[in-house]
Amino acid sequence: MKAEIISIGTELLLGEITDTNSAYLASQLPLLGLDLHYISTVGDNQQRLVDTLRQAWQRSDVIIATGGLGPTQDDITREAIAELLDEEITIDSDLVKKFEELFKHYKIDMPRSNIKQAGVIPSAQIISNPRGTAPGWWIERDNRILITMPGPPREMQSMWTNELLPKLQQRMQGTVILSKTLKTFGLTEATVDELVSPFLSATNPTLATYAKLDGIHLRITAKASAMSEAQELIAQREGEIRAILDDHAWGVDSDSLESIIGTLLTAKGLTLASMESYTGGLLANIITNVPGSSDYFRGGLIAYTDEARAAFEFDVQLFSQYGAVSPETAEAMATTARDKLAADIGVGLTGVTGPTEVEGKPIGTIFIGIDDGQRKQSFARDYPGNRLQVKQRAVTSALFELRRILL
Amino acid sequence: MKAEIISIGTELLLGEITDTNSAYLASQLPLLGLDLHYISTVGDNQQRLVDTLRQAWQRSDVIIATGGLGPTQDDITREAIAELLDEEITIDSDLVKKFEELFKHYKIDMPRSNIKQAGVIPSAQIISNPRGTAPGWWIERDNRILITMPGPPREMQSMWTNELLPKLQQRMQGTVILSKTLKTFGLTEATVDELVSPFLSATNPTLATYAKLDGIHLRITAKASAMSEAQELIAQREGEIRAILDDHAWGVDSDSLESIIGTLLTAKGLTLASMESYTGGLLANIITNVPGSSDYFRGGLIAYTDEARAAFEFDVQLFSQYGAVSPETAEAMATTARDKLAADIGVGLTGVTGPTEVEGKPIGTIFIGIDDGQRKQSFARDYPGNRLQVKQRAVTSALFELRRILL
Repeated sequence: MKAEIISIGTELLLGEITDTNSAYLASQLPLLGLDLHYISTVGDNQQRLVDTLRQAWQRSDVIIATGGLGPTQDDITREAIAELLDEEITIDSDLVKKFEELFKHYKIDMPRSNIKQAGVIPSAQIISNPRGTAPGWWIERDNRILITMPGPPREMQSMWTNELLPKLQQRMQGTVILSKTLKTFGLTEATVDELVSPFLSATNPTLATYAKLDGIHLRITAKASAMSEAQELIAQREGEIRAILDDHAWGVDSDSLESIIGTLLTAKGLTLASMESYTGGLLANIITNVPGSSDYFRGGLIAYTDEARAAFEFDVQLFSQYGAVSPETAEAMATTARDKLAADIGVGLTGVTGPTEVEGKPIGTIFIGIDDGQRKQSFARDYPGNRLQVKQRAVTSALFELRRILL
Repeated sequence: MKAEIISIGTELLLGEITDTNSAYLASQLPLLGLDLHYISTVGDNQQRLVDTLRQAWQRSDVIIATGGLGPTQDDITREAIAELLDEEITIDSDLVKKFEELFKHYKIDMPRSNIKQAGVIPSAQIISNPRGTAPGWWIERDNRILITMPGPPREMQSMWTNELLPKLQQRMQGTVILSKTLKTFGLTEATVDELVSPFLSATNPTLATYAKLDGIHLRITAKASAMSEAQELIAQREGEIRAILDDHAWGVDSDSLESIIGTLLTAKGLTLASMESYTGGLLANIITNVPGSSDYFRGGLIAYTDEARAAFEFDVQLFSQYGAVSPETAEAMATTARDKLAADIGVGLTGVTGPTEVEGKPIGTIFIGIDDGQRKQSFARDYPGNRLQVKQRAVTSALFELRRILL
């Protein structure tokens, strides 16, 4: 079946935001056996939006639209679809009640304009949005499926995963397409590509590589007539790839390094504390993004100055001897975090994030220290990129080493 | 004049890469006074590509296509344009010679397939590509301009900046389009919309609102025959909007709250320190994303446990009296950060980020404390959303209040 994506919003045509929704949805459609033929982007202009929808309605079986469902005057996706299908919009009073309760909960007066978001046409089934006020629509008419979702990526992705993907899966029977993502760290994309090169040209399962902030991801996709068959194809290829990539492979699908570490710490009944300098709290922030992290994360220290280091009873003598950016300092930071915050394991993270060199060490130099009470270890890394990228890579690297030690 | 962008490549329809070229080009077109009406993405399929080009040729004055100019069989942009315009492709022997020299320079045998990239039609002027082998085309026919550029972003951007932007600038005289973004915090999008509602329907300047993580942005766009006139139109509308939004407006264009705070602290010669609980270091992380923040940021404390709080000499008695999530605790955290890290200003941030309530206070309850040595203040906030959103909003709110106090 032919699919088409329509991204709606003048901000896309002004280049103010990049359309990541389309790439996300495009990567999902093969799982449904849908062939994506076109992606169209159109602004908040009713005539042009109706023209674009009409063209899609003529040439595609499944149309997925994102954006233009907000409460403001320039959000006109609902109006354009009503015009396309020649249907009337009426206000769903149950939805208005839901909105009123939501605003009441946050002690805000509901603006009149939000009522617009409760509009619905006869062919549309309302798809709830647990992460915002804009509901989606599911429309089936004339052998076509037209779906609308809100533009903010997290609202869209949550609605897609929880509501629309299962709904579409029911419609697309006969072929099972299954994917699994294997996550690696510590290898470049070109190296991963070379290592798994024979599998990249295979047709079932297919294999594709993606460079992400937390390393290189490999997506294995299998097509079969039954789920068990697809699972078997994937399991076999995954085994072959893992044998090649060895312990660079750290997780699958929705795994994150911070959630894996959380699981390991919880299983072993261990606690963690951190001391950072130039990463400025990013390590602690990522660790505490995991719900329930307060059970194993004691706390963190961020020291930018000698006074701050002294306040943590950190041995400032070490600095004059080894410098702020050194393996010895990273280890001592780990020990300080461990002792000061009464944790089982301390992680220290120091490095050069820019804008200038530090102690003659170039931007991108990173030292990770880990003290688990039995052994102090340090790891030296060297990362390309700007300030934010170096911070992110340093933290990913620290989490990766922490995972190895916990295993 | 109406413009349209066409992105070509099956990898875009498979979601393997995100189309950043379109966003880049979209952000460039207003500088030329071109109105971008559509972006279309199509795969390496000649029939669908010709259909897409024909539609663009019918509805737009300037068409900019990227991708599909490589040497392989699936690169068919040249062939599709020849079909659209009913012209013949011939091989340009000068270009073939240039390719041969290039490959010789790199001591590689030129693959036969590269000859394809020397193809040209009578209407097309060849645009050289200093960063690759695929040349672009500039076509002027029937009062339309059709441009093709290679897909790899660095080749495309270099060709655009050095060759095509100046060439288009010569053609598009007489109109200047200028935009300015005004950033606000503390109001919902619907409220902002209601407040500025008379301006939303104006045609010059136009006004649009966008919900972002750091608040609601308002974009003012003016069209004029001279730059000074466009600037004046924007300045007047900006003044009117600022009068309505009052001190909710905190910055413009590329301003961030953390960079504004950095500038204010530097100007006043003041230093800052933080103590966080449930935001887990996000505040310190955002502050230290600013290059040069080590000049004014002393450090940060992150306390998840009583032991950690005690280690910072934080008065744990306060907890039993007021609870971990209270205005008194937020203020005391600010004072601890200030004293312990020897800073001029301390910020304390506590709240409930989930997964469960704390002390009977619901997820989303936030208290911000600020101690500048003269006065201790606290601010209570209540935010919707999941763990990451609550963390982000709490931090944005803390930065916003800190800015107010610094002003």
